[in-house]
Amino acid sequence: MRITLINPNTSRAMTDKIGHAAREVAGPGVEIVAVCPAPGAGPAAVESHVDEIAAGAAVIDAVRADLAAGGSDGYVIACFGDPGLDAARELVDVPVVGIAEAAIHVAAMTGRSFAIVTTLSRTLGRAQDLLARYEFERACVAAYGTGIPVLELEDTGSEAFEDILGWCERAVREDGADAIVLGCAGMADLCHRLQERLGVPVIDGVAAATGLVAAMVRMRVGTSKRDEYAPPPVRPAEVAAGEAATARVASVGA
Amino acid sequence: MRITLINPNTSRAMTDKIGHAAREVAGPGVEIVAVCPAPGAGPAAVESHVDEIAAGAAVIDAVRADLAAGGSDGYVIACFGDPGLDAARELVDVPVVGIAEAAIHVAAMTGRSFAIVTTLSRTLGRAQDLLARYEFERACVAAYGTGIPVLELEDTGSEAFEDILGWCERAVREDGADAIVLGCAGMADLCHRLQERLGVPVIDGVAAATGLVAAMVRMRVGTSKRDEYAPPPVRPAEVAAGEAATARVASVGA
Amino acid sequence: MRITLINPNTSRAMTDKIGHAAREVAGPGVEIVAVCPAPGAGPAAVESHVDEIAAGAAVIDAVRADLAAGGSDGYVIACFGDPGLDAARELVDVPVVGIAEAAIHVAAMTGRSFAIVTTLSRTLGRAQDLLARYEFERACVAAYGTGIPVLELEDTGSEAFEDILGWCERAVREDGADAIVLGCAGMADLCHRLQERLGVPVIDGVAAATGLVAAMVRMRVGTSKRDEYAPPPVRPAEVAAGEAATARVASVGA
Amino acid sequence: MRITLINPNTSRAMTDKIGHAAREVAGPGVEIVAVCPAPGAGPAAVESHVDEIAAGAAVIDAVRADLAAGGSDGYVIACFGDPGLDAARELVDVPVVGIAEAAIHVAAMTGRSFAIVTTLSRTLGRAQDLLARYEFERACVAAYGTGIPVLELEDTGSEAFEDILGWCERAVREDGADAIVLGCAGMADLCHRLQERLGVPVIDGVAAATGLVAAMVRMRVGTSKRDEYAPPPVRPAEVAAGEAATARVASVGA
Amino acid sequence: MRITLINPNTSRAMTDKIGHAAREVAGPGVEIVAVCPAPGAGPAAVESHVDEIAAGAAVIDAVRADLAAGGSDGYVIACFGDPGLDAARELVDVPVVGIAEAAIHVAAMTGRSFAIVTTLSRTLGRAQDLLARYEFERACVAAYGTGIPVLELEDTGSEAFEDILGWCERAVREDGADAIVLGCAGMADLCHRLQERLGVPVIDGVAAATGLVAAMVRMRVGTSKRDEYAPPPVRPAEVAAGEAATARVASVGA
Amino acid sequence: MRITLINPNTSRAMTDKIGHAAREVAGPGVEIVAVCPAPGAGPAAVESHVDEIAAGAAVIDAVRADLAAGGSDGYVIACFGDPGLDAARELVDVPVVGIAEAAIHVAAMTGRSFAIVTTLSRTLGRAQDLLARYEFERACVAAYGTGIPVLELEDTGSEAFEDILGWCERAVREDGADAIVLGCAGMADLCHRLQERLGVPVIDGVAAATGLVAAMVRMRVGTSKRDEYAPPPVRPAEVAAGEAATARVASVGA
Repeated sequence: MRITLINPNTSRAMTDKIGHAAREVAGPGVEIVAVCPAPGAGPAAVESHVDEIAAGAAVIDAVRADLAAGGSDGYVIACFGDPGLDAARELVDVPVVGIAEAAIHVAAMTGRSFAIVTTLSRTLGRAQDLLARYEFERACVAAYGTGIPVLELEDTGSEAFEDILGWCERAVREDGADAIVLGCAGMADLCHRLQERLGVPVIDGVAAATGLVAAMVRMRVGTSKRDEYAPPPVRPAEVAAGEAATARVASVGA
Repeated sequence: MRITLINPNTSRAMTDKIGHAAREVAGPGVEIVAVCPAPGAGPAAVESHVDEIAAGAAVIDAVRADLAAGGSDGYVIACFGDPGLDAARELVDVPVVGIAEAAIHVAAMTGRSFAIVTTLSRTLGRAQDLLARYEFERACVAAYGTGIPVLELEDTGSEAFEDILGWCERAVREDGADAIVLGCAGMADLCHRLQERLGVPVIDGVAAATGLVAAMVRMRVGTSKRDEYAPPPVRPAEVAAGEAATARVASVGA
Repeated sequence: MRITLINPNTSRAMTDKIGHAAREVAGPGVEIVAVCPAPGAGPAAVESHVDEIAAGAAVIDAVRADLAAGGSDGYVIACFGDPGLDAARELVDVPVVGIAEAAIHVAAMTGRSFAIVTTLSRTLGRAQDLLARYEFERACVAAYGTGIPVLELEDTGSEAFEDILGWCERAVREDGADAIVLGCAGMADLCHRLQERLGVPVIDGVAAATGLVAAMVRMRVGTSKRDEYAPPPVRPAEVAAGEAATARVASVGA
Repeated sequence: MRITLINPNTSRAMTDKIGHAAREVAGPGVEIVAVCPAPGAGPAAVESHVDEIAAGAAVIDAVRADLAAGGSDGYVIACFGDPGLDAARELVDVPVVGIAEAAIHVAAMTGRSFAIVTTLSRTLGRAQDLLARYEFERACVAAYGTGIPVLELEDTGSEAFEDILGWCERAVREDGADAIVLGCAGMADLCHRLQERLGVPVIDGVAAATGLVAAMVRMRVGTSKRDEYAPPPVRPAEVAAGEAATARVASVGA
Repeated sequence: MRITLINPNTSRAMTDKIGHAAREVAGPGVEIVAVCPAPGAGPAAVESHVDEIAAGAAVIDAVRADLAAGGSDGYVIACFGDPGLDAARELVDVPVVGIAEAAIHVAAMTGRSFAIVTTLSRTLGRAQDLLARYEFERACVAAYGTGIPVLELEDTGSEAFEDILGWCERAVREDGADAIVLGCAGMADLCHRLQERLGVPVIDGVAAATGLVAAMVRMRVGTSKRDEYAPPPVRPAEVAAGEAATARVASVGA
Repeated sequence: MRITLINPNTSRAMTDKIGHAAREVAGPGVEIVAVCPAPGAGPAAVESHVDEIAAGAAVIDAVRADLAAGGSDGYVIACFGDPGLDAARELVDVPVVGIAEAAIHVAAMTGRSFAIVTTLSRTLGRAQDLLARYEFERACVAAYGTGIPVLELEDTGSEAFEDILGWCERAVREDGADAIVLGCAGMADLCHRLQERLGVPVIDGVAAATGLVAAMVRMRVGTSKRDEYAPPPVRPAEVAAGEAATARVASVGA
């Protein structure tokens, strides 16, 4: 079984971290491939709605590239906003799972409630949209931004770790969270250390999504191709979405 | 006051229709500009999640191009999935309104309930996401796909009209809808004829969004720049999202 | 186009303020008429559920009086509890919009969340009912009563202003509100000053409702007359509701 | 213990029926008084939002009249829209229960789900508002209007009975309702016959509310006077709401 | 009329207290019987999910024993988690009401909101499940565990009383609760004293459930036997659930 | 890694089936143990709320027995009502997952919506409770009872299969379900055949829960022991819940 993890940002260091986290939980017989866009072909980090759209485009590109190379048994979208998840599901019939989705689902099975601890507070709106979409609004009792930018997580020295730990402790103590969901793929390597310090389950979405996709592949369960997630319509005159970079805007009738 | 309407698909015919619908309701003193991507620089139509992401990118491009040319007093995203709405709000401090959003809000003020009648049933999932995001799940009592592709709406002869009318009638009669929301910018020109035949309000999002943006401009109310919708972070090493078309996928540590 | 704004309380000073706020946003070609009950023919202020019912009766009276005089192209109910809104919709087929409704809808388009800042805390229950009715329970992240009675707003010296500003600041800082909704028509004149000080959108419902009604009139969209909002049944033996003031209670079979 | 039931419409026949239904369940030691407005001092029936406001005013009048005569130990608002319920709670500190409220609460304790069968379909919007306010949106699996006007229920010959029975049967068979809630005080006398025919619990709100108020009186539990339901503010210059009938509308600054 | 109250824990002191609280509100003509399991035949207290299942089994035993002895006109499950409520409803066609259910329903009729004050915080999850099941998630504005174990309530000296009062005061002052729901049958005797001190309604579920069952009996309304609550299937080979204590676990195919 | 699956009913044939379904997806290195109560020590099937409580007791017994024998790395509750799930989580700190929970979570990742197809319609109430508890009320678009008793599934000849298939087809065609959740552990062996015929994902909870528990074990994520799921209080005087079978009911003060 081969699972491809797609980091839609261009950080190779983070992509390495993601591949490592996935391999730790994959179990025997599961090949893990972690990919990211070439420099300039995706956002450097995903910290805004503008980035989110670029990330979605990068996910589509990655899935198409993987399909052209033979395809995988399942895909993980390794960015906490789950960019391009619906679009990727249109392109394949194997399982596709986002790391926010996976982390939230698993957290819900470790207790009654969880809290999300993430990078910049400006991304909490996207997290709220996902909680509404996945219907976990009651289970999520808090969501905190630590103020640490995504790319600074690559070097999570003790200070960043203690900052993140502090927010987790607050969520457990003040909000009564039974578990913590880490809100960024770049935090994957902190997961076990945080759990040890906190004494409650800490869920990294990369590991959760990898485990879920592997389980779904073994269950022979993929993506439903009924209507919404059927392959997208192909329109003859249409230039591939990949060429959108040359977009120029034309005023009509102004 | 200048309002720019962004049709994220490449159909100039539809863009003309959109501009016309907006001008009908703009009232004196409002300049309407309707733009769309150059051929190849956006999706031909928005009928899938893959299209949706390309449309979001096209919206960002259009807003940036308009800003570079001096900017407008408000923006309308003239595609029923409201693609790129959150991203566009990050880029400006003036009002930005999507046509799905606008149509739904106005419909809610014409009675207790409404139904959405749109193009392909596969787009109903996106409509459901928007209803959840905008919190109109009780008010929307039905959502129907007519099976008519977006681009076939450019030539809405009597057959398409009767088809659409049939779904609207069903929504009123069987689902008790007080009003109809048209689920595609390409239906703007059918609005008044449908209302005449149905005897209940029929809302075209292009007109609704234009009216709302004009009102917000006069109220001096724009987009909140607090946190989530503040300008997106600019990262020095990052290549503009517009260049994403050259994306190539690199495997790391596979 | 003629829009009639109905202030259901008897304060002529507040009615003047309301008319002024509406004219500021009405744009060219829109005639604004602001009316209120004669002294003794309506509540002095609307600060309780008892007042709310008297206000509803005053709204019905005002609509009937306006219809008798030829009618308007649209109506605004200029009291934050939206008293009589459903009843007024039964009486006409043109748009009728309440200022709470309008302010909430517009606020939702300026960001993700808003807070309501109003007069007495005892009116917050009514606000909660409206949020449930209009389905904005997630978007409204806080609702505060300032403790300032409605009629003291007529003389909003610096102290009242600073009080209100303080609650708004708290909503932005502690509750993360992207925008502020002013919870009383009597606050209309504070709107721009508050927005300047706060740096986030501040929405006055009088302006919002006026803008919405004008847009709906231009869109040729009115009130759905299907079933619930059809003209109320006329029962031959029934004395007009307007005569209810002579009510005497008769015990039957006690 | 003395419980006053307020029928806000002017039908003495219906008021008699209400008193009778209450006495049947009141148990020993409970005095039942059923009142209604004098002819012309209230709506003949409550079948529209316009009627609802007149009914609310009639309820306030009746509570005030009863207080002036010494007051009761509890009040029942005997009209399915629960008009004036919040206002009545402001006026007293003893229990006040509406018949829609009571019927819905009791129905929820007879099974998992219920359906409402009422008079005109145009009143279903009000029922939906109450279900949202009382939070029974999941438990209520259907709501049907029979098309029988309130006043025709006074003479519920076999035809009306069979009509109502038919809707109840449909709710049980097709919607899986565990119980039926009768949506009008005028149906009180049909309750036991319907239950016998249907084989599932049928709940009349008059009986339910009477039982609930009696229980609350024995529990020494009344209406919370904290903030929202504290006595309404008395404003010196204000003419009593009861005089609203002389309302004349004054244009200000038009 | 005979109402049987089932305390599923083995405390006879608490069972006495429950019987007393019920008799206080039962009114003339209502016989109250309060039962509990024999020592060893039920949990000593219900403070965990493990206890909850044992309590459910004890409730089933008690209902069956009462039926064997001729049955009652109605049943109250006198434990705040409402253990075995659905099961008991399968066994009888008369009313069965849980004390959490009853307290919550009555509290909702004393104002807009309430708070639950209970024993150990670990039981709040069960309370949340009940609030979701009964659909009172908006009305319940706070739920507090005092940390006082159930069995220590048998001796509620001044210290425990002041502790409980403190949490109630916080709920009223900080959370704006209009009323207090006592979250344990063992608090029944504190109800009136707390209400006196707090000045808002305090609801004991034992009294509330007794009042509700008595009302339902007088209304001739019982439990719906349609499908879900029909008598449970009897399977020939099955040993009575009451013999489950001899359970031994067998591994199959391990 | 050793995962113990607990079938709370006494059918050894079904327990064999469950063990087989789990082994199919467990992957290398995972030992599967499937247990059930000895005859007479649990319900023969779980088809009522009375059965549900007996099943919960059987689950507790099984977990305790397994702990006494050294314990496992994770537990699956192999009965669609997830009986005893919360209680089992109190007893261990490793993962415990119910098959309803697991099937629902996985189904939500195969598309937008799913339907549940189960045995007797009387169990749909329990399914609805679980959907509310796990917050999947929007995603679940239909739930059907086939009318086939649990124990008849042991011999699922072609007739039962075609019946079940028919309900699945209806859910896909009429309700637009993207996937099917099988509502009984006894249907595990039908999963792949149904999926083949339907063309949409069909999820068996036994496989889903096994996959999830294995993933959680590899992630080193267990059950949160914070407060609600901490070990249950041990009360000295208390006889073990396992002895509840000797329950006799004592009337106190009657």
